[in-house]
Amino acid sequence: MQINIVKIGGNVVDNPEALQTFVEEFSQIEGPKILVHGGGVLASRLSEKLGIEPKMVNGRRITDENTLDVVTMVYAGLVNKKIVALLQAKGENAIGLSGADGNLITSEKRPVKDIDYGFVGDIVAVNVPLLETILSHNYVPIVAAITHDKNGQLLNTNADTITAELGLGLARHHDVSLFYGFDKNGVLKDINDDQSNISEINFEKYQDLQAEKTIHSGMIPKLDNAFKAISKGISQVWLGKAEDVRKAINSKSKGTFIKTQTS
Amino acid sequence: MQINIVKIGGNVVDNPEALQTFVEEFSQIEGPKILVHGGGVLASRLSEKLGIEPKMVNGRRITDENTLDVVTMVYAGLVNKKIVALLQAKGENAIGLSGADGNLITSEKRPVKDIDYGFVGDIVAVNVPLLETILSHNYVPIVAAITHDKNGQLLNTNADTITAELGLGLARHHDVSLFYGFDKNGVLKDINDDQSNISEINFEKYQDLQAEKTIHSGMIPKLDNAFKAISKGISQVWLGKAEDVRKAINSKSKGTFIKTQTS
Repeated sequence: MQINIVKIGGNVVDNPEALQTFVEEFSQIEGPKILVHGGGVLASRLSEKLGIEPKMVNGRRITDENTLDVVTMVYAGLVNKKIVALLQAKGENAIGLSGADGNLITSEKRPVKDIDYGFVGDIVAVNVPLLETILSHNYVPIVAAITHDKNGQLLNTNADTITAELGLGLARHHDVSLFYGFDKNGVLKDINDDQSNISEINFEKYQDLQAEKTIHSGMIPKLDNAFKAISKGISQVWLGKAEDVRKAINSKSKGTFIKTQTS
Repeated sequence: MQINIVKIGGNVVDNPEALQTFVEEFSQIEGPKILVHGGGVLASRLSEKLGIEPKMVNGRRITDENTLDVVTMVYAGLVNKKIVALLQAKGENAIGLSGADGNLITSEKRPVKDIDYGFVGDIVAVNVPLLETILSHNYVPIVAAITHDKNGQLLNTNADTITAELGLGLARHHDVSLFYGFDKNGVLKDINDDQSNISEINFEKYQDLQAEKTIHSGMIPKLDNAFKAISKGISQVWLGKAEDVRKAINSKSKGTFIKTQTS
């Protein structure tokens, strides 16, 4: 199978109009596809309303028990079911899943070294046969960024990492592309010009861009992760605006594609 | 298939110890099974914390937009995923679903007559083939009491009604029993004696019990619904404590079975 996995972030999830536009576009992507989402801004807003103080250690957010309940409610409940209902209205047979459902994603609570992150999970295994079964029946999995440890504990897990791990699991037998929607039009030559996106980057070009300091430092972890995914069997990784995902798949004129070899 | 459908209410969902005991018992029920749950008390508590005033008209609760968000978060998010994770820890391949997921349950917003109930759904259709597929792959569906109208709107839906409608849909081709867990030990002869449960009731006996005013008035709607389900093809309906479901299935010594003919 040729499988497209799309990740959307807070700028889409937390904005009803942006979400509606994205759903419209996503519903028109042909073939097997998976959507991964979090819902961070909504979760922070709910935490605030509930008087749950955000716990930070060395600038990193800690998931305590109350925060875990909030992210479980927001990601796997509110956001997931809203997206599923919107896609169902477009005739897409969406099915919402957390990592606990059907044992889709097993993780382990992050070991305490310098920082105790609380109920945060690092992925141990992805249930690839379950995904294959769901996709082969033409269902569209909508995956919330919550996993479980198989001992009854839910764990908060990074949505970008989930996207990559689902992709790597499927890439053993399938042709997998990852599409990361974020708030920029891809990798920009000029951070102040959203039209200055570089349409394709291979590893050689990435090294050149780094050497000439063209790449904004915030992009380096994203690009490192993209090249890591490609080195492990993902066909291509795309970065850009979520609303442009379908156009990118069809014409490649939007956002930035990261590939082993540029076409 | 012989299918057991179990419904649990607030007294189990809202109490971690009771939930753990129930999960232990439910995990030991053999064969195809489905769990249906709400989470009303938790939802009310969250609404209160968020300062959402419960809206009541003529003593009936109204689901406004904020309340719908709360029940979606609590039922389909927090409660559903906690139950799924606990069952996964017992080796059960639980998969959590709302009525929107895979278009499991389509409903329509309740028409406004005397009262506008808000975002409350009356069930229109159940996706029986989806349930059959899931059950035949040995997954255990955990169904949250949220449905959708197939036009993008989620709707709050009564968990007892969902239980009956899933049962009736499956009963066309399968042998279906419904198990309603509540806070009493079944239908009691003496409302003050929890050991006075009547172990089996058929329609004739029900009429006798009503005539001699043995049945507590609060039980009459439950029993009417049970007989209605049986008249439409459900094999038997059980009422009792959720923790006794497995024992009831095995020995029938607990709770009350409602049947066409007593055995």
